[in-house]
Amino acid sequence: MKFGGTSVADLERIRRVARLVAAERERGHAVAVVVSAMAGKTNELVAWTDGAGPAAPGLPASDDEYDVVVASGEQVTAGLLAMVLRNMGVMAKSFLGWQTPILTDEAHGTARIEDIVPDKLLATLDAGEVAVLAGFQGVTPGGRITTLGRGGSDTSAVAIAAALQAIRCDIYTDVDGVYTTDPRIESKARRLARISYEEMLEMASLGAKVLQTRSVELAMAYRTPVRVLSSFVEPGEAQSDTGTIVCDEEDIMEKRIVSGVAFSRDEAKVTLFGLPDTPGVSSKIFSRLADGNVNVDMIVQSKARTSDTANMAFTVGRRDAGRALEIMRAGKSDIGFSEVTIDDDVAKVSVVGVGMRSHAGVAQTMFKALADKGVNIQVISTSEIKISVLIEAAYTELAVRALHQAYGLDQL
Amino acid sequence: MKFGGTSVADLERIRRVARLVAAERERGHAVAVVVSAMAGKTNELVAWTDGAGPAAPGLPASDDEYDVVVASGEQVTAGLLAMVLRNMGVMAKSFLGWQTPILTDEAHGTARIEDIVPDKLLATLDAGEVAVLAGFQGVTPGGRITTLGRGGSDTSAVAIAAALQAIRCDIYTDVDGVYTTDPRIESKARRLARISYEEMLEMASLGAKVLQTRSVELAMAYRTPVRVLSSFVEPGEAQSDTGTIVCDEEDIMEKRIVSGVAFSRDEAKVTLFGLPDTPGVSSKIFSRLADGNVNVDMIVQSKARTSDTANMAFTVGRRDAGRALEIMRAGKSDIGFSEVTIDDDVAKVSVVGVGMRSHAGVAQTMFKALADKGVNIQVISTSEIKISVLIEAAYTELAVRALHQAYGLDQL
Repeated sequence: MKFGGTSVADLERIRRVARLVAAERERGHAVAVVVSAMAGKTNELVAWTDGAGPAAPGLPASDDEYDVVVASGEQVTAGLLAMVLRNMGVMAKSFLGWQTPILTDEAHGTARIEDIVPDKLLATLDAGEVAVLAGFQGVTPGGRITTLGRGGSDTSAVAIAAALQAIRCDIYTDVDGVYTTDPRIESKARRLARISYEEMLEMASLGAKVLQTRSVELAMAYRTPVRVLSSFVEPGEAQSDTGTIVCDEEDIMEKRIVSGVAFSRDEAKVTLFGLPDTPGVSSKIFSRLADGNVNVDMIVQSKARTSDTANMAFTVGRRDAGRALEIMRAGKSDIGFSEVTIDDDVAKVSVVGVGMRSHAGVAQTMFKALADKGVNIQVISTSEIKISVLIEAAYTELAVRALHQAYGLDQL
Repeated sequence: MKFGGTSVADLERIRRVARLVAAERERGHAVAVVVSAMAGKTNELVAWTDGAGPAAPGLPASDDEYDVVVASGEQVTAGLLAMVLRNMGVMAKSFLGWQTPILTDEAHGTARIEDIVPDKLLATLDAGEVAVLAGFQGVTPGGRITTLGRGGSDTSAVAIAAALQAIRCDIYTDVDGVYTTDPRIESKARRLARISYEEMLEMASLGAKVLQTRSVELAMAYRTPVRVLSSFVEPGEAQSDTGTIVCDEEDIMEKRIVSGVAFSRDEAKVTLFGLPDTPGVSSKIFSRLADGNVNVDMIVQSKARTSDTANMAFTVGRRDAGRALEIMRAGKSDIGFSEVTIDDDVAKVSVVGVGMRSHAGVAQTMFKALADKGVNIQVISTSEIKISVLIEAAYTELAVRALHQAYGLDQL
């Protein structure tokens, strides 16, 4: 069971979480719980580390000490939940990253879990006790604290579930499952009873913020079923049909062509005009961006009809837009373009579904639905199980609703 | 160097602490720093653990989880100070109790340090780096977090100084040294350049709140010189004559009969009337109190002139007064007294000085000075280097000032 920051924001809510844990034990399950920091605490700690400032030139970066400060947030919640559980008559014991241990690499601030030694946890569960783990944190082989990066508690939970060979990893959050699209935009959005790992991965990376991408990758690699459900469910009510189960494609009975419509406004489009139409130009552009650590998502190249130059447009994360522009300007003479523009008034809208693999006409349905509403498509990209289009940001809601209806998602 | 909670209350003050550390390094010293939690943080954490409530009957107490929660406060400060030092160009590395390690017994909440393995700290110092240690915490041999009890950071600092065989342990605090008495009560109070371990121990246990008793015991056991000085000193100014050095009696040139006047209002007097004047009565009273974990300080017994019964008065900590009363009432028929009263309108005033060992008339000076001001003495207790009297609380300031003058402490 994993509970995020809003679910453990104060003692009242921690008590609520404890009741959910107790109810799960009463169903006869051995339970390991992973907790985030109390809502707001991580921001407070991060603000202090910001105030401390970066290491002076010539000294090692302070990321390791950042981790020491920030990891304290989950430590507090783990101790408090163990106390509240004992107060309710349920024996519990907290485990910090170094105690389990959850071994990671040395990439402080964005560490990756390399190994979890489950012996102590299993001994605790075997003794009939609840193991309460501080999420988001680990320890290097050298004994220094690491954190997994924001939202890393989902990853902690899935990794621990895999290490314990748990029958399921329940991620309690502030939504009651994975929806066909964001219900705040389309009131006809439906909760999915099940979704495949592959689809969830696309949904997560396309902007649906229910689960961290890395946690879904882990779940898929270890075939650990993950359930997303609301932490506001009543303790007696968390039955097997609550929430959304993320699982193997083969474990989903109902076959759909499209499972969901995702969207993201965190995009920016960079356009280069007047490129020489010669081999090697693309390579020059994208190797420079890669060297500058800028991820490129969608790409489209077009030949100007009346000249021998070409134009190139690509999208980057909105945070990286300024850096991408700098990198392009610095390489202007080498690459040989005449002008570069940035447009962050764009949104990416995507349809996702494993059914696309075996169905023709999915793209056609999308383009027609958007054309019928007068939505102009700027860039298109596809994978085996998704189609994404870049459109003007103002059309986002209109496009999402049109696609939701076009694929019959409101009929599920 | 050790800095308490008010010295690290926010980033501004942590930066100030970092400047003091940097200045000490510039004097050519290798430096280990021990820090408390930011002022107010420990109270916040403790309040949460109070809200979590005690373990249900039949379950182990939650003191171990209390320690997990509360130890996070010092963790934050240690990480932040290491970051600020690096930001100022001084390489630093934080150490939590489990990382050093600082091994303690398993008395969670009030643990005692059993061993400090200095290898990692020494390696850090040898590398020219500052070691920043989280005070107040340790780890059991089984790898669970412990805390040393409130104010335990002083003890951490002295123990670490002893383990490192440091030339000195500087305790930076909100006063600029140890005074002949509390300057808030007697404006003529003088800062002592040096005070012996024995005197400091008496002063600390008699109510002077400059250093924790346990830290002075440790310093005395390991012959570690401790200096008390203000954290508001300017970085360039912390010279050898700043603050007060707590050291061996032999290292103090200037010989005084009395070094200080201490007082405490945390006392309560319990009086038993009409006790049978037979052997074994005292034993019954004090073994019951010991069983109930009530510490008794001063004791006086008096025979009523006109009867064959006796009265007995003793003092306990004010927090324990209610419990002491209950214990006495429960044993009334066994002990055989007729009446018990509690008086917490009392104060204990003490004079302390190693010079008493070789000087007669010290007590006489005290009694005369108090009598001259009309202060009635209720109970007296003495040790080799101190005399304490219990008086009515309203006379506290008057008595302190009279004694300060009587022993010429304003002339130092």
